[in-house]
Amino acid sequence: MSKNAKILEEARQVSAKPPAVILCEPQLGENIGTAARAMANFGLVDLRIVNPRDGWPSEKARAAASRADHVIDNVRVFDSVEAAIADLTFVYATTARSREVSKPVRGPDEAAEKVVSIGANGAATGYLFGRERWGLNNDEVALADEIVTLPVDPDFASLNIAQAVLVCAYEWRKTATSNALPFRLSTEEHPSATKEDVIRMFEHLEGALDTANFFRPPERRPHMVLTLRNIFQKAELTDQEVRALRGVIAALEKRTPRPRKDEVEDGSAGMVVDSDTGEA
Amino acid sequence: MSKNAKILEEARQVSAKPPAVILCEPQLGENIGTAARAMANFGLVDLRIVNPRDGWPSEKARAAASRADHVIDNVRVFDSVEAAIADLTFVYATTARSREVSKPVRGPDEAAEKVVSIGANGAATGYLFGRERWGLNNDEVALADEIVTLPVDPDFASLNIAQAVLVCAYEWRKTATSNALPFRLSTEEHPSATKEDVIRMFEHLEGALDTANFFRPPERRPHMVLTLRNIFQKAELTDQEVRALRGVIAALEKRTPRPRKDEVEDGSAGMVVDSDTGEA
Repeated sequence: MSKNAKILEEARQVSAKPPAVILCEPQLGENIGTAARAMANFGLVDLRIVNPRDGWPSEKARAAASRADHVIDNVRVFDSVEAAIADLTFVYATTARSREVSKPVRGPDEAAEKVVSIGANGAATGYLFGRERWGLNNDEVALADEIVTLPVDPDFASLNIAQAVLVCAYEWRKTATSNALPFRLSTEEHPSATKEDVIRMFEHLEGALDTANFFRPPERRPHMVLTLRNIFQKAELTDQEVRALRGVIAALEKRTPRPRKDEVEDGSAGMVVDSDTGEA
Repeated sequence: MSKNAKILEEARQVSAKPPAVILCEPQLGENIGTAARAMANFGLVDLRIVNPRDGWPSEKARAAASRADHVIDNVRVFDSVEAAIADLTFVYATTARSREVSKPVRGPDEAAEKVVSIGANGAATGYLFGRERWGLNNDEVALADEIVTLPVDPDFASLNIAQAVLVCAYEWRKTATSNALPFRLSTEEHPSATKEDVIRMFEHLEGALDTANFFRPPERRPHMVLTLRNIFQKAELTDQEVRALRGVIAALEKRTPRPRKDEVEDGSAGMVVDSDTGEA
């Protein structure tokens, strides 16, 4: 594993105020903790819980949060959803089933775009998640602006709260950092080879193969040259890789050629089968 | 919660052969189980494990998989990564840190596009995940075609295997179903109101407010009419909602108007402050 793991700065730059996460009557402290951990992975820190069944604080939550103490330490507890969302201006309610009310339904990516665009102006937003067993009731959904639902396989819909939090948080961060990743393939460290260098390598290879009598019969040469050139083009070679291949070709050129079986056994003229390549 | 939870059929239609998930030397049976559950939520079923530390089968894995028995029952065990990926034609290796090798690095969304486009032709693909503590080594990454990494907050990167599987699986299904959701707001059940009906409602409301002497002084009327009309336009009203509002306006129109405090106390001509609205 790379010791000098450089992180791209753009992966740290979020363009919008992160949303709050509100858990409505969470039953298990462990789920509060794994939700906190999921949030922290994607830069969310504002966790609010409404009437947690087992009260607060919760050692199970802290343990399950792993290192996300900064989230656990700042959890706020409310006795109603209304109170928990009072300061927010836009709220998504997560539901797994359609509701009778005519509220827009979004996927997590669409929801993230909405939340980021509102949060880019510093406005406060939030995602509301329901109870482990039966989610949110219709009155609670009515307190939100829109619905977010995940594109699960309908025949096996069994996401738990923390998993739903994770996906929503992931989409939020992806949008808020404009798709930045912690690292990318660095063209500084791995500059691409120019076509001149690549073509020179091709010519080197083809010359070496000519010398080794690889292209037999001669009329197969053009097709095989195209095939070989295509292989290496698909590899999108870097400078370093072209140099490595030139070294390989040069090393093989220098090798004492071993006698070919077919030339020893059958000195006849005409078609010769290349026992190495199967080419006739 | 809606009893008749209709699922949109498009949410069941995946356009590509699902990728396999390969766990390299997973240490905890529980993590294998939660990975299986994450897979099942998004329609992945082919789970392969290489040298699981605690062997196989695993009751901890089955328990953690919740209802994903169809995945657990079909787990295949291999003694090397090479064997586990032998039949695949394209493999993504998940890493959290950059590697020295010049391999393309993608986010889970880009990876999903690649995997779906290859799988649309029925070709077999896979995602390779590493050990809990230290991921994959460079030799194992070299067996893959490209790298996938998640856009976590670099200052708190602490995803576990099942969470990484979840996000990759989510992006795969999102792409393979062309962003279908299990349900959307149904315009069949909730047809939008036409502008004619909306305007008629506006005129009804404004007429009722005229009768109630709401627009005082008269020169404030145009501005307030625009404000009220804008409120309801933003609500993107349905037929049913317009009818409900018409009913509300009609009911309020019929109420016996209660005497206004300011009219009782101060019968003077000129500017009157509306104690209800604060409008002067």
